[in-house]
Amino acid sequence: MTHLSARALGDLPEIRLGDDLAALIVAALETTGPGIVLEDGQIVAVAHKVLSKSEGSVVALADVRPSPRARELAAVQGKDPRAIQVVLDESAEIVRAERDVLICRTHHGFVCANAGVDVSNASGEGGVETLVTLPRDPDASARTLRARLRELTGTMVAVLITDSFGRAWRHGQCDVAIGCAGMTPLDDWRGRTDATGLRLRATWLAVADAAAAAADLARAKDSREPVVVIDGLERFVTPEDGPGAVALLRALDEDLFR
Amino acid sequence: MTHLSARALGDLPEIRLGDDLAALIVAALETTGPGIVLEDGQIVAVAHKVLSKSEGSVVALADVRPSPRARELAAVQGKDPRAIQVVLDESAEIVRAERDVLICRTHHGFVCANAGVDVSNASGEGGVETLVTLPRDPDASARTLRARLRELTGTMVAVLITDSFGRAWRHGQCDVAIGCAGMTPLDDWRGRTDATGLRLRATWLAVADAAAAAADLARAKDSREPVVVIDGLERFVTPEDGPGAVALLRALDEDLFR
Repeated sequence: MTHLSARALGDLPEIRLGDDLAALIVAALETTGPGIVLEDGQIVAVAHKVLSKSEGSVVALADVRPSPRARELAAVQGKDPRAIQVVLDESAEIVRAERDVLICRTHHGFVCANAGVDVSNASGEGGVETLVTLPRDPDASARTLRARLRELTGTMVAVLITDSFGRAWRHGQCDVAIGCAGMTPLDDWRGRTDATGLRLRATWLAVADAAAAAADLARAKDSREPVVVIDGLERFVTPEDGPGAVALLRALDEDLFR
Repeated sequence: MTHLSARALGDLPEIRLGDDLAALIVAALETTGPGIVLEDGQIVAVAHKVLSKSEGSVVALADVRPSPRARELAAVQGKDPRAIQVVLDESAEIVRAERDVLICRTHHGFVCANAGVDVSNASGEGGVETLVTLPRDPDASARTLRARLRELTGTMVAVLITDSFGRAWRHGQCDVAIGCAGMTPLDDWRGRTDATGLRLRATWLAVADAAAAAADLARAKDSREPVVVIDGLERFVTPEDGPGAVALLRALDEDLFR
């Protein structure tokens, strides 16, 4: 019998530039309660926001000069032109500007709402002052965090960086992998078709995305629990850092919608 | 601390038309080992194929007469024209016919590869003879299975019917909800934006899809374990059957790609 388990750690302190996130995770493990220790083969899933903050991927609205295009889009969508400018800066391409959302392809290649730009929880009093962007290179962030966790605890875990993305044809958002290290992002069983040419079963499982979705369910509603420890996926955890979440991206020339 | 747990039950026998799936699940609970009993608030996730078979949503290839269009598509894709005909029969619309896959909108409104048509594991010797289609009305199937599980065990669980779908911009497949009863498919926190107009956090969590993805991870690689019991999502389980997975479907006029 296989058994998947995902446990959210208690609140981390407010994260600031330069914070040692691995050390904060280790400290949170100790305060969350008995029974959670890092072990080889676990996956440590981290909501990207804390990582972005520790790396300084934040933008002060006061520093942003909106372009004419940002002003134009902001007027249509009823948003702050400076926030729209940050979204444009994070985007390689606006896939769709419709209703109240910009669907963007980020510089990393992720297709998501508002290029993954979030309002900071750390906003000062009296209104929003800073936005949080996606990490520059989430796979590199995952590798660095993994190495540091190994340094501090001696364990070989995988690290998964997550964000909540919408879907083309379905309502709501699911967490997906935007970075990972030490795990197989895709479990490949392709080629197993039969005489009809149809699949025998799902043949290319997006393990990292499914793990991200599972991790998000372990968080209590409306709580701030950015770190989730997953047991039961040891078969996907690898000694090497592996290809990262970039392997999940469909190349532009394979995009089903062009 | 919240804690998500997903455990796969052992193999079910080969399912045939008219089988009492709930009774087979209860029997599988008993043989899977100690510690798994149904309890109020659990989610019982079922890979759709066993449900389809119990309901007779299977097609014998020998009975299929391919249309000219099916022959044409099959020639391009190198597939059996009768299998393509089954896919066409299941589709309200072919969203895209490209490379080696048909992206279809099914009569239910699901957008997925090959209209969810699968090769049956129960194919006779000497080649594929039957295909398995999606259940006619997966939400109704979930309600029926839920009621029967309640009848047999006295417990109030939710039932989730799953299938593996590809994604527009990402490689690989993730399991999603195609039917559910007794749970909130979408956890709605919308409207929580701030002065910038950007989201404070993911505000419309696709709980049922995330639970489907988590359930699939609890299955051992390449095993036949259609039923997974999920603990830790009691907050999303409801006494009433609720809106079902149809609530997850983006209406045609809201499709981001039209």
